[in-house]
Amino acid sequence: MAKINENYLKLKAGYLFPEIGRRVNTFIDNNPDANVIKLGIGDVTEPLPEACRIAMTKAVNDMASRDTFHGYGPEKGYAWLREKIVEFDYAPRNCNIAADEIFVSDGSKCDTGNILDIFSHDNTIAVTDPVYPVYVDTNVMQGNTGNASDTGEYQGLHYLRATEANNFTPEIPDTKLDIIYLCYPNNPTGTVATADYLKQWVDYALAHDSIILFDAAYRDFITDSSIPLSIYEIDGAHKCAIEFRSFSKNAGFTGIRCGFTVIPKQLTVKISSGETVALHKFWSRRQSTKFNGASYIVQRGASAVYTEAGQQQTKTLIRFYLENAQLIRAALTSQGYTVFGGEHAPYVWLKTPHDLTSWDFFDKLLNDTHVVGTPGSGFGLSGEGFFRLSAFNSRENVQTAMDRIAAKLTV
Amino acid sequence: MAKINENYLKLKAGYLFPEIGRRVNTFIDNNPDANVIKLGIGDVTEPLPEACRIAMTKAVNDMASRDTFHGYGPEKGYAWLREKIVEFDYAPRNCNIAADEIFVSDGSKCDTGNILDIFSHDNTIAVTDPVYPVYVDTNVMQGNTGNASDTGEYQGLHYLRATEANNFTPEIPDTKLDIIYLCYPNNPTGTVATADYLKQWVDYALAHDSIILFDAAYRDFITDSSIPLSIYEIDGAHKCAIEFRSFSKNAGFTGIRCGFTVIPKQLTVKISSGETVALHKFWSRRQSTKFNGASYIVQRGASAVYTEAGQQQTKTLIRFYLENAQLIRAALTSQGYTVFGGEHAPYVWLKTPHDLTSWDFFDKLLNDTHVVGTPGSGFGLSGEGFFRLSAFNSRENVQTAMDRIAAKLTV
Repeated sequence: MAKINENYLKLKAGYLFPEIGRRVNTFIDNNPDANVIKLGIGDVTEPLPEACRIAMTKAVNDMASRDTFHGYGPEKGYAWLREKIVEFDYAPRNCNIAADEIFVSDGSKCDTGNILDIFSHDNTIAVTDPVYPVYVDTNVMQGNTGNASDTGEYQGLHYLRATEANNFTPEIPDTKLDIIYLCYPNNPTGTVATADYLKQWVDYALAHDSIILFDAAYRDFITDSSIPLSIYEIDGAHKCAIEFRSFSKNAGFTGIRCGFTVIPKQLTVKISSGETVALHKFWSRRQSTKFNGASYIVQRGASAVYTEAGQQQTKTLIRFYLENAQLIRAALTSQGYTVFGGEHAPYVWLKTPHDLTSWDFFDKLLNDTHVVGTPGSGFGLSGEGFFRLSAFNSRENVQTAMDRIAAKLTV
Repeated sequence: MAKINENYLKLKAGYLFPEIGRRVNTFIDNNPDANVIKLGIGDVTEPLPEACRIAMTKAVNDMASRDTFHGYGPEKGYAWLREKIVEFDYAPRNCNIAADEIFVSDGSKCDTGNILDIFSHDNTIAVTDPVYPVYVDTNVMQGNTGNASDTGEYQGLHYLRATEANNFTPEIPDTKLDIIYLCYPNNPTGTVATADYLKQWVDYALAHDSIILFDAAYRDFITDSSIPLSIYEIDGAHKCAIEFRSFSKNAGFTGIRCGFTVIPKQLTVKISSGETVALHKFWSRRQSTKFNGASYIVQRGASAVYTEAGQQQTKTLIRFYLENAQLIRAALTSQGYTVFGGEHAPYVWLKTPHDLTSWDFFDKLLNDTHVVGTPGSGFGLSGEGFFRLSAFNSRENVQTAMDRIAAKLTV
C-alpha cells in the first residue's frame, strides 16, 4: 500500500492569502460596484522593463533556426547570466562571489523551499516571527517540526520574535540553532538589517556551526549605501550563509520566473563520519538531478537587467514603488497611524489603531475604504496588531487608497 | 551544528552523461579536426514551432503595459492552457481528465523528482532496468533506498528487468510494490506498452493499493492508434496512476521548459488514521507552497501547441525525428545490427555487436566513426550489451553517422 507523507496533515488549513481572497470575494459579491484597491499580495503591477522585453523577443527568435536554437541549458544557468550577476551585484560591493557559486532557478520561492532537500531532518530550525509563511510550511511538509499548537505555532520550530520593542530585529539567541532563516529588507515588516546586526548573526553562526538562509529578494529597494545589499558583505558569511535572490521585485519578474541561489564553495558542514563536505556540491547535485535549468528565454530577459538600459529601467521601477511606499507612509503618519518599514522596502508595516486585531482592521479597511491589505497576524503571532500594505500598485490607486483612509479611517 | 542529508553520499559519483562528456572532450582534444556527431543525449535540435514563437513574442509584448501585464499566475497553471490540454490530449481518447486535475510545471524532470515529496519514506519503490536515472537518483537522495551494492544497484529498490527475452516489458511481479515507475514509449529502449500490458499493471496496482508513476514524455511519437497515449485510457487508472507529460520532445521545449502532471481526484490513499485522502490535494499543497507557476511567456508558448498551426507544426517535427529513427533502424539493420525501438519513439536501442560491453562499443563508435551515443549500461545492469542512439539531430548528420558506420563498423 502506497504511503503518503503525513507531515502535510500538520499544515493549518487556512493559509493566509486564500482566506484574504475569500473575504474579498464575499465583499465584492455584496458590493459589486465597489472599486476595490488591492495593496495586499506582494505582486508587481508595472510593465516589464523594455530591455528585458527586447532581450526575450530576441531569444524567442533565436529558437527559429538550428544554429541559434537552444535546447537543454546548464542546470545551474548560463554562464553569461551568472557572470553578469557577479559583475553587477557582487563585485562592486567586494563580496568575493564567483560565477560558479551561483545557481540560477525559476524563482526564489522554489529555492527557499527546495533547499531543505539537502539538509537532514534533525536540525533545529529558526524563523523570525512574523515570517514569510513559505519558510515555515516547507519545514512542516519536510517533517522538520511537530504538530501545531493551539496558537498555530509548530512544535520544534524556534521562533525569533520581531517586535516593536526590538525594532523588528530579533535578538541574537543564546540557545543553539542549526539553521536560521533571515530576510532583509524584511517581508512583512519592511525593516532592514545593519552591517553590525548581520555581523552578530554571522558570528553566532560561525560559533555554532549554524547555517543562515538569507533571503535578499528585496535588496534593490535599499537606498542607503551603508546598509548591506548582501550577507556576503559581512566577514565570515562565506562560511555560514546561503543567499537567495530574485528578479521578481526589482525587474517585475513575478510572472516571468527567475531567481538564483548563492552557495560559496567555502561553506562546509561536518558529516557523521567526521569528514567535511561542501554544501555547494550537494546543491549542485540536487539541481542537476531534480531541475533542468531556467528557461533560455527567461535567462536572456534576466541578463538584460544587467545592461545599461536594464539597470536604468529597473532603478526607475524601484524608485516608482518606493515613492508609492513613501506616499503611504506620509499619508498614514499624517492620519495618526504608527508606521514602520517602507523606506528600503516595498512594504509598510502599520500598527492597527485602537488595539484592533489584524483581521478586524482588515475587515474595517475593506468595508469602510474598499482597500485590501494583509493582516500581520497571518505572518505569525508577533504580527498580531499589525498590518502590511504593499506599494505594488499604480500611483493613482495608491493615492486613492490613501485619500479614502484620510476621509474615513483617521486614527 | 547544521546537519546535511547524508543520503546524497550514497549516490554513485560517475553519472552517465558527465562521463560521456568527459570521454568526448578527451577525444576532441586528441582529434581537433574530427567532425563529431552527437546522437547521445535526448535533446532536440530543430527550430521551435512557429506557432509557439509567435505566441511567446505576443506574450512578451503583453508585459509592456499595465492592462495586459501578468504577475504571479496560478501555481497550477493558467486555465486556458489546462483546458486546451484536456480538449486536445485527453478528451479525444475518452480519458475523462478534468482541467483542474492538471498541474502545469517547468518540466517533467522536476515533477518526477518532486513528486516524492508527497510520499513517505517507507514505500517499496520499483523501477524498470534499464531506467531513466532520475527516478533512481531522486529516490536515493530522498532516503528511500539503502546503499549501492557492488553492481551499482541500490538496496531496497526493486528492479523490474526489461530484457530482450521479455521484449523490454518487465513481467508483472508477484511481490508487493507500493510505487512503480513506468515510462512508455520507453526511454531508453524505445519500446511501447500495449493496452493489455498497461491493464495488467493497473490491475496489479488496484489489487495492492500501489501507485503507478507513468511518464508519458514521448507519447506523441506513437504512430499506431491502438497503442495507448495515456495511462488513463486504461480502466481503473484514475484510481492508481499519476501521469507526467512534457512539451520537450513533441514541441522542442527542452530549453523553454514546460511540462505537466495529472493527478485524478479519484486517486486516494489510506493514511495511518484509517482515513482516505486524495493525492490531488497533497500535490496541490506541495506546488502552491514550493512552486510559483511556470512562466507566463512559456505557458503561452505551450498553449500555442494546441492551435491548428501548432498541431500541424508539432506533427511535422515529430515526423521528422521519426524519419531519422527509421533511417537509423534501416541502416543498422542492413549492416547486420540487431535493433529495437525507434518506431514509436525517438530512441533506437541496439544490441552491441560481438558481445562488446556498452562502454567498449561507445569507445569504438567514437574512435572509428566519430559518432556519440549512450551506453546502455548507464541506464542499469540490464542495459549492458546495449546502446542507445537518439534520433534528435539534423537529417544530414544522421545520414552521415549511418554512412560512417556502414563504412567502418559493419557487424
